[in-house]
Amino acid sequence: MSHPYSPRDLILPDYTPNLRSISEVHAWNGIATFLAMFLVWLISGMPSRRLSKTDRWLMIWWAVSGLIHIVHEGYWLFSPEFYKDKSANYFAEVWKEYSKGDSRYASRHTAVVGIEGIAVIVAGPASLFAVYAIAKGKSYGYILQFALSLVQFYGSSLYFITAFLEGDNFACNRHFYYSYFVAQGGTWLLFPALIMIRCWKIISAACHLHDQKCKTN
Amino acid sequence: MSHPYSPRDLILPDYTPNLRSISEVHAWNGIATFLAMFLVWLISGMPSRRLSKTDRWLMIWWAVSGLIHIVHEGYWLFSPEFYKDKSANYFAEVWKEYSKGDSRYASRHTAVVGIEGIAVIVAGPASLFAVYAIAKGKSYGYILQFALSLVQFYGSSLYFITAFLEGDNFACNRHFYYSYFVAQGGTWLLFPALIMIRCWKIISAACHLHDQKCKTN
Repeated sequence: MSHPYSPRDLILPDYTPNLRSISEVHAWNGIATFLAMFLVWLISGMPSRRLSKTDRWLMIWWAVSGLIHIVHEGYWLFSPEFYKDKSANYFAEVWKEYSKGDSRYASRHTAVVGIEGIAVIVAGPASLFAVYAIAKGKSYGYILQFALSLVQFYGSSLYFITAFLEGDNFACNRHFYYSYFVAQGGTWLLFPALIMIRCWKIISAACHLHDQKCKTN
Repeated sequence: MSHPYSPRDLILPDYTPNLRSISEVHAWNGIATFLAMFLVWLISGMPSRRLSKTDRWLMIWWAVSGLIHIVHEGYWLFSPEFYKDKSANYFAEVWKEYSKGDSRYASRHTAVVGIEGIAVIVAGPASLFAVYAIAKGKSYGYILQFALSLVQFYGSSLYFITAFLEGDNFACNRHFYYSYFVAQGGTWLLFPALIMIRCWKIISAACHLHDQKCKTN
């Protein structure tokens, strides 16, 4: 077979190997992420905003989350033939590389397309909206962050569950299995879980107060 | 092929047709659901509880939801060979019948197994817990109901999306397509959506009050 992905009998006609070095792809990802983080940190830190450090970090998370959902995952969703790309398109390179950790991105597994479709169309724009909601201290900020985190958590859970149910044989070796599939997939379980716990506590406390007020009135 | 399901080339060795009449299966489902609803309505209506009619209907929804997730879907999750059943087991009959609307239940499509796994193991017990949370007026009642509804809504969305992506050809005819796949699947979109809207509004109002209190203190 003319591709590096697992399982070996996967058929990907006209596959074109990575045209940029892996370090270059990782470097651009790193630089873009760092720039986005720095920009949000700067804007959210303006004295007039009076935002807590936690809220500023959450704004960074939702900005980076939203951009990844819309830009990276969005490119993938609408580029079913990225693995044939001969133009060294940066995003095609990203997904050719990530598919080494999970070939279902190359073979367009329907569960992955469904999960990514929801991430791109719903979670992406809503994540950027969460940045605004936190900045403006909107009353729906906590429930919005909770909902988004649950969408990310459910999607990632199903992402792993479907892989396991089908034999967990989609990474071309242990290195890519752990560094791409487990580590990057796990990020979308860990941070959403932490944000859900925080929002759950704040919302429960607020509802407790609300109920008390309703009872005393 | 020796089974009624679509697509016709689906291989289901030792398939055994329904051994009870369809009306009998529907009747038992109806009687059991009605009994559960009646029981919750009776218990939740005790004067000492002072529950609103909305909360009593929500308790009914979560009790029936939880029982369907645990009992019906739970049987399916752990019975991969239900379609071979020769003992007229009631739940095997239910799933033989429902598979006419979506054969992925007979073929054990991995996305369906993943969605049902989460429904049975997480959403089922948590739905019954929501009945308790509403009855006791717990402060986490709204966020719990919101989370559960989002899990049901996401699961059902992906249930439909994966079917469409794979050609939407899993029902044996239009009657079963609309009455089972669309209508029953749609129920798990409609009610969760309504509950999510209600909880979102209540939680946002409570958080608004909470923020005001924090600012004035």
